[in-house]
Amino acid sequence: MPLAQLAAVVESLRSALPGRVETDPDSLAPYTSDRSGHRSSGSPLAAVYPRTIEDVQAVCRIASAAQVPIVSRGAGTGLAGGAVAGPAEIVLSFRDMDRILEISEANRLAVVQPGVLNGRLNAVLADHGLWWPPDPASKDISTVGGNIAMNAGGLLCAKYGVTREAVLALKVVLADGTLLSVGHRTVKGVTGYDLCALMIGSEGTLGVIVECTLKLQPVVVGEVATLGAFFATVDDAVAAVTEATRRGHVAAIMELMDGRTLDIVSSHTGHSPAPGAGAYLLAQCDGPAALAAAAQLAAIAHDAGGTVETTTDPEESRRLLDFRRSAFPALEAQGTMLVEDIAVPRDRMAEAFAAIRRIEETYGVAIPTTCHAGDGNLHPTFVFTGDEVPEHVWQAAGEIFSTALELGGTLTGEHGIGLLKRRWLQDELGEEQYDLQRRIKQVFDPQGILNPGKVFPAAD
Amino acid sequence: MPLAQLAAVVESLRSALPGRVETDPDSLAPYTSDRSGHRSSGSPLAAVYPRTIEDVQAVCRIASAAQVPIVSRGAGTGLAGGAVAGPAEIVLSFRDMDRILEISEANRLAVVQPGVLNGRLNAVLADHGLWWPPDPASKDISTVGGNIAMNAGGLLCAKYGVTREAVLALKVVLADGTLLSVGHRTVKGVTGYDLCALMIGSEGTLGVIVECTLKLQPVVVGEVATLGAFFATVDDAVAAVTEATRRGHVAAIMELMDGRTLDIVSSHTGHSPAPGAGAYLLAQCDGPAALAAAAQLAAIAHDAGGTVETTTDPEESRRLLDFRRSAFPALEAQGTMLVEDIAVPRDRMAEAFAAIRRIEETYGVAIPTTCHAGDGNLHPTFVFTGDEVPEHVWQAAGEIFSTALELGGTLTGEHGIGLLKRRWLQDELGEEQYDLQRRIKQVFDPQGILNPGKVFPAAD
Repeated sequence: MPLAQLAAVVESLRSALPGRVETDPDSLAPYTSDRSGHRSSGSPLAAVYPRTIEDVQAVCRIASAAQVPIVSRGAGTGLAGGAVAGPAEIVLSFRDMDRILEISEANRLAVVQPGVLNGRLNAVLADHGLWWPPDPASKDISTVGGNIAMNAGGLLCAKYGVTREAVLALKVVLADGTLLSVGHRTVKGVTGYDLCALMIGSEGTLGVIVECTLKLQPVVVGEVATLGAFFATVDDAVAAVTEATRRGHVAAIMELMDGRTLDIVSSHTGHSPAPGAGAYLLAQCDGPAALAAAAQLAAIAHDAGGTVETTTDPEESRRLLDFRRSAFPALEAQGTMLVEDIAVPRDRMAEAFAAIRRIEETYGVAIPTTCHAGDGNLHPTFVFTGDEVPEHVWQAAGEIFSTALELGGTLTGEHGIGLLKRRWLQDELGEEQYDLQRRIKQVFDPQGILNPGKVFPAAD
Repeated sequence: MPLAQLAAVVESLRSALPGRVETDPDSLAPYTSDRSGHRSSGSPLAAVYPRTIEDVQAVCRIASAAQVPIVSRGAGTGLAGGAVAGPAEIVLSFRDMDRILEISEANRLAVVQPGVLNGRLNAVLADHGLWWPPDPASKDISTVGGNIAMNAGGLLCAKYGVTREAVLALKVVLADGTLLSVGHRTVKGVTGYDLCALMIGSEGTLGVIVECTLKLQPVVVGEVATLGAFFATVDDAVAAVTEATRRGHVAAIMELMDGRTLDIVSSHTGHSPAPGAGAYLLAQCDGPAALAAAAQLAAIAHDAGGTVETTTDPEESRRLLDFRRSAFPALEAQGTMLVEDIAVPRDRMAEAFAAIRRIEETYGVAIPTTCHAGDGNLHPTFVFTGDEVPEHVWQAAGEIFSTALELGGTLTGEHGIGLLKRRWLQDELGEEQYDLQRRIKQVFDPQGILNPGKVFPAAD
């Protein structure tokens, strides 16, 4: 696109959103990356900071008329490059659309602008005895709109569901500026196709989410019981998880760290709570039967060979949780991280871990792996030096993806496709569904200006 | 279409599915209606009874080549005319695809063919300590595939979710015979667009559901507490429900019957348990805190002016539930029923009831109304003589729909659009979303042969 034309686009943006358009390359630099480690080839054209839905519509109309891409952006905490912007693209930032518009206790819902932080929202909701369950690790610094655009997961999904289950309705601006209301303010509603569900997890490629009606839950009251257990092997820990599921347990949290991760945490902290252990399992039970459930889980873990510690003391609980939370800081201290994100059926977890061990040997890389064990979501993690993911790491990651598919699983449990996994997308969807999904994209965004190159390759 | 061409289609079907094609008008007669009261203008061309996915693909290819419509059909219990077939249409019946293919305790899922009855599946699952939550009133006689195609609701949705939340993955045959796998066998999965959610509730217009991977829950154990309460007015009963929600209660069941319904039940059974009562509230609490929750609900109901009875005795519980269940048989004894199905935000329920009273006066009809009060889903019901819905009843129903939309609600909480509500669909979706949904339909079914005339008008 000729430079004069791009300059005219910036001019139009400035007159539509006076004082809310940024073009200074230094200010735009953060938008060329996210938490994935990916960096775009250069500075975007501009960043705009809408305050209202009408502002967003104006931006979309300008972008549409000039066929300039729009990259919607929350807090930039994504792990797949979904909100990374490059040359000749407009960053649509929700920094200034961060208001909580309504909290209704009687309807157990909240209406919010997409830029509100998940953590801040939940702090406010707590005063009303309410809670929005999605809990990605980033929740204190990530936005509700971003959580929805990625269908974020987290630690609590086996019991409390993924983001899709926590959204009632959305207002969405299409590429051409059309405003749609999808979903329902009601608990039930089956009018027409469920475009609200379709929008959730669409990574900014179908429309721009401008208002979110969230399904809330009452805060879970009562004592919480936390359990930590060291096992000799990952297989033993997985066996405990499998037995718990088979017996009907639904823990709020069920996390697993492999021996490779334990070693890195030990050498990072200089403290090894269980030398030689091959796995750590962390579980947390809440609700009216929390203590009884934790006691049963402890027995199951013990029978599977675990050295188990159970507590209801908040300080002790925090210590057990912090041990799990120390994994990523310890990994990050070693170099640049590429956090992968496969999910497998729960009865294939042991096979997934075994395959990761084989892939480590084949490629001569360590792949410390943490796992949301309650739902079979593994995070095999690569650590390397420099900014660029080395090719052999991508090859090893590719083998991990193939393994996930062979085990009946998926490329991505909660991080999304973004830029980083699009070359494997067709492997999972198959050619026919891949083509169908592209045709759906065309219905919403015929010019292809919404987050091009994300999920699907741009030139395709 | 010329008769010779239709005959050739039947011939192709017979050679693809030998012995599994029916054309006798008497045998086909049941397929011209469902539980909506709607009857099509005449006998369909044929009914086919596939046994395998390949059979369904063969039927779709034949229908596609000849551009003959396909109407997928489960048990025909729909209340919106979604599975009604007419002249020159093929009924694709799932009568013979009713097998349970897999039950996995470790993955807490089942894989079933679409024709299995919800009730039969749950009977089998109970032996595994598992449960599939969707519970439409028809569940003993309706199919899992039909429940999914309509995104069925029921009594338990406020606590246990709608059908959409209970489906992990689907196999779907498109109009041209293409087989797709959508969704995931895993708890989490965010690869590409969520076509599984899009398919749920699409009423047979986007694809033919041929295999269902269901998300199960452990059977809820422990004592169940049931509460019945009579109130002087609907407003009092609604106030109790609102207060319970505000205080964070999530009952498994929370049902409301208005005074009009109570009168009809009394005159039908010859027994009036609370003469002059204006409303009946039924609640059921389960799980580890069931008794405490029921005691709290009883206090709330009492404070709202209710005459409350609480029990944990299974026989007494059944009696309280049966009183609610007697509503539809009592109504049905009076004539032909048209059961409407609006949903409103929970804090607008009292206004919805008040509007129904006004509409009764305007049109000189009684509109006894039952309500899934835990989620604001009202069933205003018309009873009349003869098979045809009188025009003034449609007008009154139309006003009820307008009221639902004005209150921020929806035309249909759980029954679907089908044939019966398509003339109001655009009122809810708005013109732009209506057009967008039609374009999505075209992506899946460019020839428009999948359940034409359902959801959207055929000629449109």
